[in-house]
Amino acid sequence: MPLARRTDLAVEATELWREEAGQTTRLEGVEARDSLREGYAVTTVRILNAQGAKALGKPVGTYVTLELSGLLRREEDAFPRAARALAAELQGLLDLPEGAPVLVAGLGNRAITPDGIGPKTADHTMVTRHLVEQLPEHFGAFRPVSALAAGVLGTTGMESGELVAAVVERIRPACVLAVDALASRSLRRVGRTVQLSDTGIIPGSGVGNARKALNRDSIGVPVIAIGVPTVVDAATLACDLLSEAGRGDLDPAALSGAGEGLVVTPKDVDAQVADLAKVIGYGINLALQPGLSLADIELLLS
Amino acid sequence: MPLARRTDLAVEATELWREEAGQTTRLEGVEARDSLREGYAVTTVRILNAQGAKALGKPVGTYVTLELSGLLRREEDAFPRAARALAAELQGLLDLPEGAPVLVAGLGNRAITPDGIGPKTADHTMVTRHLVEQLPEHFGAFRPVSALAAGVLGTTGMESGELVAAVVERIRPACVLAVDALASRSLRRVGRTVQLSDTGIIPGSGVGNARKALNRDSIGVPVIAIGVPTVVDAATLACDLLSEAGRGDLDPAALSGAGEGLVVTPKDVDAQVADLAKVIGYGINLALQPGLSLADIELLLS
Amino acid sequence: MPLARRTDLAVEATELWREEAGQTTRLEGVEARDSLREGYAVTTVRILNAQGAKALGKPVGTYVTLELSGLLRREEDAFPRAARALAAELQGLLDLPEGAPVLVAGLGNRAITPDGIGPKTADHTMVTRHLVEQLPEHFGAFRPVSALAAGVLGTTGMESGELVAAVVERIRPACVLAVDALASRSLRRVGRTVQLSDTGIIPGSGVGNARKALNRDSIGVPVIAIGVPTVVDAATLACDLLSEAGRGDLDPAALSGAGEGLVVTPKDVDAQVADLAKVIGYGINLALQPGLSLADIELLLS
Amino acid sequence: MPLARRTDLAVEATELWREEAGQTTRLEGVEARDSLREGYAVTTVRILNAQGAKALGKPVGTYVTLELSGLLRREEDAFPRAARALAAELQGLLDLPEGAPVLVAGLGNRAITPDGIGPKTADHTMVTRHLVEQLPEHFGAFRPVSALAAGVLGTTGMESGELVAAVVERIRPACVLAVDALASRSLRRVGRTVQLSDTGIIPGSGVGNARKALNRDSIGVPVIAIGVPTVVDAATLACDLLSEAGRGDLDPAALSGAGEGLVVTPKDVDAQVADLAKVIGYGINLALQPGLSLADIELLLS
Repeated sequence: MPLARRTDLAVEATELWREEAGQTTRLEGVEARDSLREGYAVTTVRILNAQGAKALGKPVGTYVTLELSGLLRREEDAFPRAARALAAELQGLLDLPEGAPVLVAGLGNRAITPDGIGPKTADHTMVTRHLVEQLPEHFGAFRPVSALAAGVLGTTGMESGELVAAVVERIRPACVLAVDALASRSLRRVGRTVQLSDTGIIPGSGVGNARKALNRDSIGVPVIAIGVPTVVDAATLACDLLSEAGRGDLDPAALSGAGEGLVVTPKDVDAQVADLAKVIGYGINLALQPGLSLADIELLLS
Repeated sequence: MPLARRTDLAVEATELWREEAGQTTRLEGVEARDSLREGYAVTTVRILNAQGAKALGKPVGTYVTLELSGLLRREEDAFPRAARALAAELQGLLDLPEGAPVLVAGLGNRAITPDGIGPKTADHTMVTRHLVEQLPEHFGAFRPVSALAAGVLGTTGMESGELVAAVVERIRPACVLAVDALASRSLRRVGRTVQLSDTGIIPGSGVGNARKALNRDSIGVPVIAIGVPTVVDAATLACDLLSEAGRGDLDPAALSGAGEGLVVTPKDVDAQVADLAKVIGYGINLALQPGLSLADIELLLS
Repeated sequence: MPLARRTDLAVEATELWREEAGQTTRLEGVEARDSLREGYAVTTVRILNAQGAKALGKPVGTYVTLELSGLLRREEDAFPRAARALAAELQGLLDLPEGAPVLVAGLGNRAITPDGIGPKTADHTMVTRHLVEQLPEHFGAFRPVSALAAGVLGTTGMESGELVAAVVERIRPACVLAVDALASRSLRRVGRTVQLSDTGIIPGSGVGNARKALNRDSIGVPVIAIGVPTVVDAATLACDLLSEAGRGDLDPAALSGAGEGLVVTPKDVDAQVADLAKVIGYGINLALQPGLSLADIELLLS
Repeated sequence: MPLARRTDLAVEATELWREEAGQTTRLEGVEARDSLREGYAVTTVRILNAQGAKALGKPVGTYVTLELSGLLRREEDAFPRAARALAAELQGLLDLPEGAPVLVAGLGNRAITPDGIGPKTADHTMVTRHLVEQLPEHFGAFRPVSALAAGVLGTTGMESGELVAAVVERIRPACVLAVDALASRSLRRVGRTVQLSDTGIIPGSGVGNARKALNRDSIGVPVIAIGVPTVVDAATLACDLLSEAGRGDLDPAALSGAGEGLVVTPKDVDAQVADLAKVIGYGINLALQPGLSLADIELLLS
């Protein structure tokens, strides 16, 4: 049975499937596993075959979700733990020869706060490609990393996938890390969850603008997607609030069309996006430059 | 019968009262009148006495609402018409001797898009106080205008009302224009409505942070409030979506507590806030410097 | 005799050559012509052959300089006149079939005020490529235009020329307009001059970072360079001040090395860069979409 | 003999005096002492009486200069050392009862990079006044601190001194810390020096706009000035370059008038201002809240 409702998060798709199909039904072709990394809850969903892909409405591959709730509570070592957790999970998805070059692509619109997580992550990425080339005596041991804030169609006239493809063709990285904002079905995941996946990304799919895919098929190299839910859609919100208040269950689809043109975000979405972009940027840096500590990166970046 | 639900907009309070009390009941102590100004719909609600004030939960005074919907559709002369309409309605509320000094106070947090309308309006205000003093031969015919982006408690440690009061005591304006973001009950009013009122303002009341009042009682000079609804609260949104979708009527109060910490904004809230701040700023300039045209102001400001 | 000193502006190179060679010597292979366009002074320098190219240290081609001094004085119609003048001169250099696609590339670092003129111009460019493709019924008469803020090596790891080349290869424009900051030798040209040239551009050459060329040879399509001097180098400034004060003439080369790491800008460089980026952006829009007026563009862009 | 040339830095005034008067002459009424704090060079100039004040053209008081050159070289612990050094020197000038309230005033124009050090420092100030009042059970042990970015005349119509005075009158702090950009005579001091002084400040004096003083006389409470040279004036630069290049010595006064309207800044002035604003903000926080470590402040501020 394919999933009636859609979500960007595999972990939510699994939950929805269970709701729809009933708790006792077994979801064939999908494995889910919970674990803990640096104190943060990690859920790994593996879609193993076409059956699982059809059920969850997502391509075959691995989807890792980190719940970074401690980050919001500003616990003392929350930031370094989160960056290290993200780096470790990312390394589990990467399969890169030492020194193979990587392109980090920040998707989305910097001018719209909840959509700016991609470009802001690119700001925190340690760019080294030019240093490795020009100063090999100092930077020879670094992995060459480039970064690109791919902008949006309205400001460039190009699909972000098109722009990334153009750059990939030119500089030939071994892998692309694509960072983007997602939509979640759940209020409690917004602004505190990161999904890593080895299946690539469809820019804008979370907010109803599915465009060209950005994956190995479209650009010829593996694409690791790093997605952060920063908005909930209005219909989902309405149904969740009803349910929370014990006013019955309603499917967001029943409200379809209502709330178009609205977005629901946390009040402190500015701070949440800033914090998460830094965690993801530093996590990427740790994963790509395994010889460096967080303190080294802080020094090199600032 | 006092109003069970609350809203920052007098025009909404009137609608709510009718819903609650029934269409045929007469609302004593309140007058409402619809008109048209430069092609825009204007509603003027006058709360005449304590009875009206109690019914609508707002102080005695005049509340003018402009519906600037054409602005959003980017009709060709929408901007100049909106600025002139706002100026004319504002002049109707002001009772200023020629040349009497005015302080424009932009309330709210510039760093949070929907809360930044006040500071952004201050950016578009033509500040002349220092010019009138220092170059009277050129600027003697101008009204002295000062502007203040009053910041928020978390960044200054002072209530914005406290800061405005301090400045008023020092520079003794004849009137304060206080610009702030409001919350609306209605999706269709968000980002396209401006409320002018001669009753002053309670900073943050729209989003549940009522603090010290900013009105003639608290600072000793008249305060004209200029408010723009830029957010809808989440519970209101949920109930409106249900109702729009024909899924029954529910009072937002029934969802109270749900959706705390969330805000609902239009997707293009960045552009809407930018556009409205410019309209309001230019409207203020036209109202305060009646000798100038929009073209003069454009030239002097840019 | 080749020029001892270098400058980004052909008009300055011509002046320098005359200073060095003496006023009576004829500069072979170079034609210069002064004219007036919309009230602004225009100088057109044509380098006709290898002899002229060697003398002035610049490739064969046409270099048009507009002096937009009225813009600074904020004369009433200075902006529309400047945009139209720029559009007319730009059209004189362009040789584009109707409807042929164009890429506008904003070079430089947005975060450094005097270097941000390129990216800021890209912000004012009317991007239409996606509209022409997706809504041909409405936008079929528009020329497809894309825009790219090419960033800088330190933030992307890629030369801006490399990035532009990658995009050109992918989207195949008929022409690239490359906007960049230049260095001037003359204080009075800074922030008020625009040079258009059909010879392409060498990113960073103005501030001593000559990198890969961005011209027809390097990317396969014609490159029109649009350059704005926003800085003077410190040694040049020192010599000019001496000379202005009647304290003798000194060649900046004599101070070589001194003042490294410093830039000299007008006090109001922020406002000048903002104003010029808008003039250039609107001038480009007028030149590329000849069916539109400035008012149309204002409406479509804002 | 009074000083012919002027500078914002007492340490430079002392050097100039020696140049003008000859090295062997004793400067009466002035004491200067060099020391080292956390590895940084500290010079303390004390102007003891009217004679010293007249000679150096500065009021009687203490002027402490820190040379934070290591900060620029990005040595590993440069930031914490600099913040602690600044805190220690600041505490030496403060004479505050425990828990006495303080106002931090960031002077200058945020929109002009080299003038934005004051407002940016205010951003890094830990504001606690509202917390101490509203949550005494958690914040009772904190000193109440308010912050104000005082803007500039052109954007507010008020002198920054006037605005600070208005706030002081209202909230009655025991002391004001006023942070402002200065001009230096020396290229090597720009962007790497901080001057602390207990004599207050004259906003804009560094760039030739002397306005109302901000000191104990004008506002009734002690004013500690924290100044950072971020620009060199053009005439000074010219003379220094000449001298560096062995081309003779010229007094900047001889070039007076030349270079008006220009500023000379380091190429990386954006990064320098950002770094110094953070050092000063954190130094202020350490000095005002002696119970907190840098790590505590990092956690509370971010």
